[in-house]
Amino acid sequence: MAAPKTVLIVYAHQSAGSFNSAAKDVAVEELTKQGYKVIVSDLYAMNFKATATQQDIIGDLQNPDEFKYGDETLHAWREGRLTEDIVAEHQKVKEAELIIFQFPMYWFSVPAILKGWIDRVLTQGFAFTLQNLYDNGIFKNKKAMLSFTTGAIQSMFCPDGLHGDINVTLWPLQNGVLHFCGFQVLAPQVSWCPAHSPPDVRTSMLNAWRARLKTLLAEKPLTFPPCTMFDMTFPGGFVLRPEVREEQRSCPHGISTGHHLGKPLPPDNQLKAEEKGDAV
Amino acid sequence: MAAPKTVLIVYAHQSAGSFNSAAKDVAVEELTKQGYKVIVSDLYAMNFKATATQQDIIGDLQNPDEFKYGDETLHAWREGRLTEDIVAEHQKVKEAELIIFQFPMYWFSVPAILKGWIDRVLTQGFAFTLQNLYDNGIFKNKKAMLSFTTGAIQSMFCPDGLHGDINVTLWPLQNGVLHFCGFQVLAPQVSWCPAHSPPDVRTSMLNAWRARLKTLLAEKPLTFPPCTMFDMTFPGGFVLRPEVREEQRSCPHGISTGHHLGKPLPPDNQLKAEEKGDAV
Repeated sequence: MAAPKTVLIVYAHQSAGSFNSAAKDVAVEELTKQGYKVIVSDLYAMNFKATATQQDIIGDLQNPDEFKYGDETLHAWREGRLTEDIVAEHQKVKEAELIIFQFPMYWFSVPAILKGWIDRVLTQGFAFTLQNLYDNGIFKNKKAMLSFTTGAIQSMFCPDGLHGDINVTLWPLQNGVLHFCGFQVLAPQVSWCPAHSPPDVRTSMLNAWRARLKTLLAEKPLTFPPCTMFDMTFPGGFVLRPEVREEQRSCPHGISTGHHLGKPLPPDNQLKAEEKGDAV
Repeated sequence: MAAPKTVLIVYAHQSAGSFNSAAKDVAVEELTKQGYKVIVSDLYAMNFKATATQQDIIGDLQNPDEFKYGDETLHAWREGRLTEDIVAEHQKVKEAELIIFQFPMYWFSVPAILKGWIDRVLTQGFAFTLQNLYDNGIFKNKKAMLSFTTGAIQSMFCPDGLHGDINVTLWPLQNGVLHFCGFQVLAPQVSWCPAHSPPDVRTSMLNAWRARLKTLLAEKPLTFPPCTMFDMTFPGGFVLRPEVREEQRSCPHGISTGHHLGKPLPPDNQLKAEEKGDAV
């Protein structure tokens, strides 16, 4: 009998009575029912260290006078000299075919404790190399997604809302963290403002999450422009290749409007080719 | 004699030998020379607590069974029951007319220890209220800016670069944190990839920063759409007012292309009115 496949939930809320905790429980329950092994990293309960310091490295530093966290942890990773808590998370990430990040949005991003998980666990060498990025990334056979609550109501994060398009706010996380490491990024699960929603709305949000979980692993991931569109050399500067730039000029959903966002823009924003002018 | 005006530098690097430390020193030196009182919050040296927990509140919680950090800290702030380290930072923020955040970019954002400063110090009530946001924000008479180093070279963060436009990556910080609290946001100071730059390039980056500091406080801040463009009521949903939407349809630099980004897009992206079609 094959070993069950694994899902890792990286969970960041202080309270077992929270909506985030309930959303985490729904995922554990539903995915376990489907036969997955579900591991939860409950960051506050683990008292997870958020801060990237030289204490993350066992033994001597390469360059103690000019400590560079990235360089030192790459080196320590190669030599098996990272602290136990980081190694334990590495093990979970390796085993997982899907990682769900469950958190309340703090300041248009993840809470600091979860940013600490990202800073400390996604070690260079383990999670990326300069040769293995984006669709060539180390975790290209794994999936990952954000599941979070907001204080804002949904309309605030529409393209014409006060905070601007939620996809722009999520760009550094979905592209810069998840896709950067190669993960296939599933669409975010956004639970809008549960704190000010009546109990029946909170229940329907949890039910919607439960329903989505039934076929989550079969979902088509978000699309990002592939590395082949870029000149991936140092002298080339990692910018669009000239022929791609040229192609985009006559493309109805060119780089300048659709570029790098996980979802296509709504039809109103998709100008016709002849109206578009210079695309880049 | 009037008291000197104050600049606060929130500084997040582990090493006194780093480029970030040198950039911080240049700012301290140059601003002190101009007569400012300069305060540095050296987060790693302070062993600043990054994680938002109930230990930030002195005394009883309002709702210990369903702990909500935002609600509990608002309440504790009103009653003067936040921990000393938060109160000390509040005092510095109150006194400062400019805050400079000096850090190495980690994962398209700030390091966790600095995210912890944002999560814990920008307390509701102290830094924002639901009535005082963006250009009506509490800190509208103060300025703030990001000064950071990258691992990436500059072309990677151009609009047609591998990582996409740096302004999109900075949106959650510049809009969602700084402008959200009302700060006038000065253009970021980006020091590109000092770790892989020769000494003379590092020196010129520091000299450029020193030169900019001479007139920094006189710079025109980045522009963001004012709250008056939005229907700022709950039933209205905090979206563009219908008449603004209408205006934007015939505007050459409409909301859909220029919306919410600190800088105007380069001229190539600014379509002529008659070519533009539906702007929202």
